Amino acid sequence: MLYFENDYCEGAHPAILKKFIETNMEKLPGYGMDKYCLSAKEKIRAACGCPEAEVYFLSGGTQTNATVIAAALKRYEGVIAASTGHINGHEAGAVEYTGHKVLGLPHTDGKLSASSLENFLETFYGDENHEHMVFPGMVYISHPTEYGTLYSCRELSDISNVCRRFQIPLFLDGARLGYGLASPSSDITLQDIARYTDVFYIGGTKVGALCGEAVVFPKKAPEHFLTMVKQQGALLAKGRLLGIQFDALFTDNLYLEISKNAIETAEKLKEALREKGYRLLMDSPTNQIFVVLENEKMKTLGENVKFSFWEKYDDSHTTVRFATSWATDMKELDELIRLL
Amino acid sequence: MLYFENDYCEGAHPAILKKFIETNMEKLPGYGMDKYCLSAKEKIRAACGCPEAEVYFLSGGTQTNATVIAAALKRYEGVIAASTGHINGHEAGAVEYTGHKVLGLPHTDGKLSASSLENFLETFYGDENHEHMVFPGMVYISHPTEYGTLYSCRELSDISNVCRRFQIPLFLDGARLGYGLASPSSDITLQDIARYTDVFYIGGTKVGALCGEAVVFPKKAPEHFLTMVKQQGALLAKGRLLGIQFDALFTDNLYLEISKNAIETAEKLKEALREKGYRLLMDSPTNQIFVVLENEKMKTLGENVKFSFWEKYDDSHTTVRFATSWATDMKELDELIRLL
Amino acid sequence: MLYFENDYCEGAHPAILKKFIETNMEKLPGYGMDKYCLSAKEKIRAACGCPEAEVYFLSGGTQTNATVIAAALKRYEGVIAASTGHINGHEAGAVEYTGHKVLGLPHTDGKLSASSLENFLETFYGDENHEHMVFPGMVYISHPTEYGTLYSCRELSDISNVCRRFQIPLFLDGARLGYGLASPSSDITLQDIARYTDVFYIGGTKVGALCGEAVVFPKKAPEHFLTMVKQQGALLAKGRLLGIQFDALFTDNLYLEISKNAIETAEKLKEALREKGYRLLMDSPTNQIFVVLENEKMKTLGENVKFSFWEKYDDSHTTVRFATSWATDMKELDELIRLL
Amino acid sequence: MLYFENDYCEGAHPAILKKFIETNMEKLPGYGMDKYCLSAKEKIRAACGCPEAEVYFLSGGTQTNATVIAAALKRYEGVIAASTGHINGHEAGAVEYTGHKVLGLPHTDGKLSASSLENFLETFYGDENHEHMVFPGMVYISHPTEYGTLYSCRELSDISNVCRRFQIPLFLDGARLGYGLASPSSDITLQDIARYTDVFYIGGTKVGALCGEAVVFPKKAPEHFLTMVKQQGALLAKGRLLGIQFDALFTDNLYLEISKNAIETAEKLKEALREKGYRLLMDSPTNQIFVVLENEKMKTLGENVKFSFWEKYDDSHTTVRFATSWATDMKELDELIRLL
Repeated sequence: MLYFENDYCEGAHPAILKKFIETNMEKLPGYGMDKYCLSAKEKIRAACGCPEAEVYFLSGGTQTNATVIAAALKRYEGVIAASTGHINGHEAGAVEYTGHKVLGLPHTDGKLSASSLENFLETFYGDENHEHMVFPGMVYISHPTEYGTLYSCRELSDISNVCRRFQIPLFLDGARLGYGLASPSSDITLQDIARYTDVFYIGGTKVGALCGEAVVFPKKAPEHFLTMVKQQGALLAKGRLLGIQFDALFTDNLYLEISKNAIETAEKLKEALREKGYRLLMDSPTNQIFVVLENEKMKTLGENVKFSFWEKYDDSHTTVRFATSWATDMKELDELIRLL
Repeated sequence: MLYFENDYCEGAHPAILKKFIETNMEKLPGYGMDKYCLSAKEKIRAACGCPEAEVYFLSGGTQTNATVIAAALKRYEGVIAASTGHINGHEAGAVEYTGHKVLGLPHTDGKLSASSLENFLETFYGDENHEHMVFPGMVYISHPTEYGTLYSCRELSDISNVCRRFQIPLFLDGARLGYGLASPSSDITLQDIARYTDVFYIGGTKVGALCGEAVVFPKKAPEHFLTMVKQQGALLAKGRLLGIQFDALFTDNLYLEISKNAIETAEKLKEALREKGYRLLMDSPTNQIFVVLENEKMKTLGENVKFSFWEKYDDSHTTVRFATSWATDMKELDELIRLL
Repeated sequence: MLYFENDYCEGAHPAILKKFIETNMEKLPGYGMDKYCLSAKEKIRAACGCPEAEVYFLSGGTQTNATVIAAALKRYEGVIAASTGHINGHEAGAVEYTGHKVLGLPHTDGKLSASSLENFLETFYGDENHEHMVFPGMVYISHPTEYGTLYSCRELSDISNVCRRFQIPLFLDGARLGYGLASPSSDITLQDIARYTDVFYIGGTKVGALCGEAVVFPKKAPEHFLTMVKQQGALLAKGRLLGIQFDALFTDNLYLEISKNAIETAEKLKEALREKGYRLLMDSPTNQIFVVLENEKMKTLGENVKFSFWEKYDDSHTTVRFATSWATDMKELDELIRLL
Repeated sequence: MLYFENDYCEGAHPAILKKFIETNMEKLPGYGMDKYCLSAKEKIRAACGCPEAEVYFLSGGTQTNATVIAAALKRYEGVIAASTGHINGHEAGAVEYTGHKVLGLPHTDGKLSASSLENFLETFYGDENHEHMVFPGMVYISHPTEYGTLYSCRELSDISNVCRRFQIPLFLDGARLGYGLASPSSDITLQDIARYTDVFYIGGTKVGALCGEAVVFPKKAPEHFLTMVKQQGALLAKGRLLGIQFDALFTDNLYLEISKNAIETAEKLKEALREKGYRLLMDSPTNQIFVVLENEKMKTLGENVKFSFWEKYDDSHTTVRFATSWATDMKELDELIRLL
């Protein structure tokens, strides 16, 4: 069985496991105060070009989103997101569970636009009844988005400008950030993200780690952020588990290097799909490819390949998703292409 | 520097690391549906003598407590705990953050008694104004407790009987359960716990794992528990991280075997302390030892040994905590004893 | 200045004030256990044709919505509403503050349709990832809606059937229920509402009372609903304030009788608007009338009449709302018509 | 039947009803923007000697406590209260429902002391693990307390000094404030309270109003407090209901004048109880009197008098509470005394 169902089906990059073994019996302080956490933070600050940044490590994406968002919002505020945003549909209401509304705005291929954001904010503040409404207290975007699409540097800076005009912090969910940075169609760097956002995270779980996301506050974290991490149940006693992984991933540019494999395999797969005449749902430049399959084809292919159901396309077609990752084997990809 | 500050300063038991490496490139389903999770659950069910139990893996103690408690409670209910319970003082209000009160009851050496519990419940239901009060919806105990003390099987069954009389589920926090089970002064087995409680967890973080707690519902989990785990941000995409660790810990009785080292080293340390005339705060039969030190002694000892400050004892004395673990080295213990 | 800004600008119906005075020095039990509450509940049960109904009195609409919804939902559930629903936009996130998501569906003139509801529920349960999503746990509609529109009895029963098929309780917000019942275009009675919903409320604040909404559970209230009312801060010590008002409103059919004035004045106003060639935003059959005004006209009219800004229509026009009520004076209406 | 069960068994002071009638058909803006609210606020500011104070009207005590506390706290903070505080035991967990812990401290006759508060705060900040604990973010006291006792001006200023030293706002719950101010044993004025606290409320429900509490922020309210009131479901559309009542109560010193009756009747009752040899639980100088009755006496007295059960005293005695109010009739009191 070939496995293209998601980008978290393998374990960790071998460099991480090697480091686990080397450091295993060292006695280290808990709760993220160990030297590997400190070293990883330093390397991340350097990669982001932010010597002053505050960095925290959490275990997974939903946890990170809920913790960061609820830490930023005042109780009368909600978070703006594309209606397709992960926090709006696929996190079991984790943000609302902290007491805050997700304010869904229209999207294009999963992306929010600066103009629709600006329009929403102007309408909100222009409404004389806005004191009876949820105040917009944060803007959430993901890069890559739910559809694997990417913001251009200009689009990101435009959104950032709107946020700053309205004094609303901008949060970028980078669960698959490596794949965004490694995509040749992207002109956004880690430094750009640090410049244009107020908080973002560098996803580990889907990019080479067993678990872990590195939250970066380029300027300053909310006061007592660590206590809020604890309160959310997101503070690991053995913080080394996360520190060691990110220390490895940010040594010798490993994070970006391994991300390239996902892009190269995805590009090859897209080319093959196009050649064979398949319809792609959109031109997604990262590691997720959305294809429309005839239902019959989907069934036979499914006997040998695992992929994700995305949604019904029409009565005889279905949209499915193939995902590659840092660990995708080129030989397995060739086998997949042969079966298409 | 000798390190007796806590029981989570080392990495994982080598058997776990070995298994990480062996399985690393296997492609597995996410969110706890992989074969290692399934195997670990099966082994835990067998160890508990509960073939029907539902088992879930979460990352850490606070997360597990908040998730389990909030999943059990109706919105007008709170959780009863000893006033010294971990959820009441050291989890940054994680339970309250889910909207529920911790109802603190008096304790003896960190333990709740069946009689004080019964008295509280009878008074509550006897109060004609109890509809204006928080209903007791769960009883939380930990074993070992915050002070390293243990319930006897009789004490546990008495508490369980009160809970069942009032139809309130009993939850046992087993963050250090291995050390309780391995203590020669304990007459409680894993099967007893499964019999007398409605939910409990088997702590991994402090007993050989890098992270992870195994939540066991001997009869039945609350409906859609998985969704509530997700909502809390506690569902790892790579569930294998937890499954592999618990599969290793529950193979060949490893969990109990490695727990014995913590007890043996703690016993030896207690004996040495008594011989040298130190005052122990209480007779704690597990891996945490609370000793009263002269402040001067505390200072000089602190130059070579890390231990925990517990609380001021009097103007010239301080209570400190030494903790041993599955990984404590007997030679380092001898060195500590020499320094006392 | 003429006042057509809303339907809560006057005090209470004189029958209510009279009863306040008559009963003022009677010594009564608190928290809704007094004889006026009991009498009002009995009269409401009779009016609804539900001898078994449980009735509770709360102070206002947002409070009632948040209390009823949070009492019904399990923590992994959200409430479905039209995207224009009051709870979704104009209650400052009160539902989310209790930890639950509002799942907004498309609407037509403020109304939810049985087919879009059914489609949403079928898609939800058909999605293999729905365990990562917010479960639909209640359906919220209002009657009249935000736009003053009404469900037909057939539309209501269709929605009810979908809810029952999926075992999801149906909640009808009747903040302006009197005006819906009194509208000649409506074929829905109080008994129909009691038959087709699981909980609804009869609005007092906007229909003759100083404050107060009567929540009716035709079958059964959630367990310990009173405690949840208290927990929300919605339980008045002097419950008589609400009991006396609803007792008066449900004596001699007063509630429906006084509602008719709002409809008659609104009908006359609509007719005048049509005659004078104004464009109505939609054909709203209750006491709220949405009209498109030229900006210049809006300005001059605003010098003598208070009305609500609704939204920008185009660069030279604005949609405004006129509201009538149980207390609208026909002479003032004539004066308004003269000024149009 | 004589009625001494509580201080909210009558309706409103006649001056309030009179004003309801006089103003009933005036068309007024909603949500607390009407002229009666504005006038009442102005009078309250004058009575408090705080021309800059921000004043808000809410419906009842639990609602006010939950709204004020949750508006003041950051999400990692809890509120300190005497363990006997109303918010800790008798509000159905309303504070916890907003996500915040009540940190209960020891009390003397229902009162918190500056020294125990200071000790708690010093211990908290001295604990190196305090980042894993709930931060103290507000201090809650009530005046009179749950036991009807009063702070002296010195005690209040001492508590205030500790709060200011630690930069923690002080909140005074004045549900029965009139009775505290009218007590001859009190040396605290409304101006003192405004000087020493950061927020307090003047209770109406128990002192002459049908409902309503006036929240006073002597310096400044939290930003967007009105939106948080709305979010809690505590914002009445017809704000006049509260404005008119407080406008009446703060005209010609009515609030304090009518409070005196509760004190005079309570004093007379206490004197009679002492003369007849009853044991008073404590020397409570306001309108609540806690008496130890023989169970047999309690039973026979209960045939003619309503009073509150407080708690079991011993096997043959019970503590009960008699309450007087602004409306207690001296003749009924004489009748009660006769029956004792």
